[in-house]
Amino acid sequence: MRSADDAFRQELSDLLPDLALSEAEPRYLEEPRGRWFGQGGLLARPESTEAVSQILKLCHQEGVPVVPYGGGTGLVSGQIMPGETRPLILSLEKMTRIRDADAHTMIVEAGLTLAQVQDAAEERGRLFPLSLASQGTARIGGCLATNAGGVNVLRYGNTRELCLGVEAVLADGTVVSGLKRLRKDNTGYDIKDLMIGSEGSLGVITAASLRLFPRPSEVGTAFFVVPSPEAALELLELAEARMAGCVSAFELIGRQGLEFLAQVGPEVHMPFPEAPDWMVLCEIGLPAGMEAEEALAGLFEAAGDLVSDGVIAQSGQQRMDMWALRENIPEANKRIGSISSHDVSVPLPSLPAFIKAAGEALAELGDVRVNCFGHVGDGNLHYNAFPAAGKTRADYESMKTAVKDCVYEVVNRFGGSVSAEHGIGRIKTGDLERYGDAGKLAVMRAVKAALDPKGIMNPGAVLPGN
Amino acid sequence: MRSADDAFRQELSDLLPDLALSEAEPRYLEEPRGRWFGQGGLLARPESTEAVSQILKLCHQEGVPVVPYGGGTGLVSGQIMPGETRPLILSLEKMTRIRDADAHTMIVEAGLTLAQVQDAAEERGRLFPLSLASQGTARIGGCLATNAGGVNVLRYGNTRELCLGVEAVLADGTVVSGLKRLRKDNTGYDIKDLMIGSEGSLGVITAASLRLFPRPSEVGTAFFVVPSPEAALELLELAEARMAGCVSAFELIGRQGLEFLAQVGPEVHMPFPEAPDWMVLCEIGLPAGMEAEEALAGLFEAAGDLVSDGVIAQSGQQRMDMWALRENIPEANKRIGSISSHDVSVPLPSLPAFIKAAGEALAELGDVRVNCFGHVGDGNLHYNAFPAAGKTRADYESMKTAVKDCVYEVVNRFGGSVSAEHGIGRIKTGDLERYGDAGKLAVMRAVKAALDPKGIMNPGAVLPGN
Repeated sequence: MRSADDAFRQELSDLLPDLALSEAEPRYLEEPRGRWFGQGGLLARPESTEAVSQILKLCHQEGVPVVPYGGGTGLVSGQIMPGETRPLILSLEKMTRIRDADAHTMIVEAGLTLAQVQDAAEERGRLFPLSLASQGTARIGGCLATNAGGVNVLRYGNTRELCLGVEAVLADGTVVSGLKRLRKDNTGYDIKDLMIGSEGSLGVITAASLRLFPRPSEVGTAFFVVPSPEAALELLELAEARMAGCVSAFELIGRQGLEFLAQVGPEVHMPFPEAPDWMVLCEIGLPAGMEAEEALAGLFEAAGDLVSDGVIAQSGQQRMDMWALRENIPEANKRIGSISSHDVSVPLPSLPAFIKAAGEALAELGDVRVNCFGHVGDGNLHYNAFPAAGKTRADYESMKTAVKDCVYEVVNRFGGSVSAEHGIGRIKTGDLERYGDAGKLAVMRAVKAALDPKGIMNPGAVLPGN
Repeated sequence: MRSADDAFRQELSDLLPDLALSEAEPRYLEEPRGRWFGQGGLLARPESTEAVSQILKLCHQEGVPVVPYGGGTGLVSGQIMPGETRPLILSLEKMTRIRDADAHTMIVEAGLTLAQVQDAAEERGRLFPLSLASQGTARIGGCLATNAGGVNVLRYGNTRELCLGVEAVLADGTVVSGLKRLRKDNTGYDIKDLMIGSEGSLGVITAASLRLFPRPSEVGTAFFVVPSPEAALELLELAEARMAGCVSAFELIGRQGLEFLAQVGPEVHMPFPEAPDWMVLCEIGLPAGMEAEEALAGLFEAAGDLVSDGVIAQSGQQRMDMWALRENIPEANKRIGSISSHDVSVPLPSLPAFIKAAGEALAELGDVRVNCFGHVGDGNLHYNAFPAAGKTRADYESMKTAVKDCVYEVVNRFGGSVSAEHGIGRIKTGDLERYGDAGKLAVMRAVKAALDPKGIMNPGAVLPGN
């Protein structure tokens, strides 16, 4: 592959004199966990789909690799290409228009942050339910490229299910214009869903038609102390049965996470005097005419032995405090420093057995602490291993791979996924090769070769050896 | 291409001695509207995925075309291959096992009818919400292959959104095993959604992992008389806002449909003494603690001038009567005999303007009657043109194409789809070519060539010239 060198820069500049071009600053070359780095790159910040098309056409012609760039918050190094070859880093940050909106759909360009998209929906009295910790920085194009998940998947689905259509540019500059605003459109293969979650390795998403939802009239939030993950799961089923699918979020939090928060911060409001072994954060959004607090109190009563204690938020501030506790767990984890972090999912009924089996398997490997938390409502756990008290990450350097393999083997045994919501990026290509279905991998390679025959789109991401 | 001739039958029989093989009976060679016919074919009814794989491998090797066959209820001739070449007709009817089930997912083989799948979910106290008129005959494999829609898409989504994973066999016999039971699984490209809706032209779906939902505690159904499609849409928005997304179905019915029913049957219970110009069938499913009838009565009161009359079902029988009226409209249409039928969708806010514009455009063409009805909640209308009273379909034979083109031009002007839920099949390949996005068509052709290089999978379906 050819580097995006000075000569190439000149060519591109001649082709698109108004295009913002610069040497990529360090922030485009590192990822949030500070483990992977790019050596450099030519940063292009186009303002239109037409410009993206021209850029890709030239890159395709010249064989220059392209790394599409959103907010840079990805956790699997999909946005960072290491190595000698200088890529063209294609940032969508200047494409931030809302092209159109009505009560049901909003057509947005890829460079808006997720928070901006949420706000724009709220201004229209509607809800865009995708919600995740990095939403102030993550851009919607990146959320689409990685099929981001977050806390509301239980009720509303992943990014893929929140999007009705995309506009995307393929490796050779072909523009796919699919910004339909239709719930039903059976006109040919589902190219939208192929682009979503392809992590920039099949093309660049430049705009999307997003679904907007009615805002629930009554929102209620509570912490419930449960004796075990089994009980958490039974409580979820009880809640779902009673609420007819109106449970928006159902998050599991374990004692280890609360201890990390108490130890290293950030400071949060602890809801119970003593940290429980397990608790869940439950949020519901109900039709008009129902009292959310009453519904949560009714759930608490009906739960019997499944719940030993509970706090129902009485104000917006209390709701925010509850969510702050949940959303600050990753920051506490970061301050402690994990040996290895795992974004996994298992079929819901297997979740308690998975937690038990993974804990036992890790205990056999060595003395580690586990912080297991996450979106139990959709089967997605962040299952992270940490050094024993008094030890540091460096003490475990030699065990890192063994810890990861140990967790993934248990995940695989339960029919789970080694990447529930973060994607494959460059960190997990080997794991995909190892645990992925051979037939699916064959289809993926055939599709990649068909749509990006020169392999210029985000080389090294998703497909091993790509 | 080679016909599935006697020599091929012998080869296949030698390879799989236990395989049910026979000359295809007439019912495998005609479609519900009786307009397209196959000349003949070799019918294979395998009992396992392994057998499907062996069959396709041999067909691929020999260049014999394959027509995957579900329940035969498709309305766009995706299941019928005309012409001289005898295809192998691959019926999944003997693959009817439920391989596994828990409270959240059910793994079913392709040959179960949709009604059987619904029943199996109900036996487990859960809901599989896909619902359509032909559910007693349509098989789940066909529903998946065509991404079937139906009446509950508003709340629960199309078949694609109800499916977590598929097992499929590609043209060359490769088995893609993707029966994960996970809401979140970001491990590579979305091959599931590529197979779903590909109408058997990329491979054969042999099994699927389906989502099960909680059954709403309180279900309510009502007819509301509305003065106009605009009012129907406003009522929908009011209902959605009040019910926090708990509106399951919202169907539009026009005077013409009621008149056809009264004239030719089937006999149904008419809810209002005089047929209104427009009415909607609204169904809601609510959390425990709410009274559905009360919620519908509250909606009626809040609706003010949007609703002039209403009937709320007071019993299961009344609910069934309401649905029987709705579901018998297609049968009445069939008895009248349409000039041209159109399964279209438009962005919701444009729906009233579309109805007006299409009516005006058709009136300019000639004296026709329009029965416009359908799933207004998801923007999907069945917009069908009929002969004027006293005339017959034959009188309009020369206008048929003009009528269709006229409707599609208006659909296209409003950013709609010329196939909302029925698919492309063989009837609409020209329309896809005409109204489809060039970039999307290029991707579709590249994917087809990559996965089925010899073009044996359902030739002539979906892609023109395939």
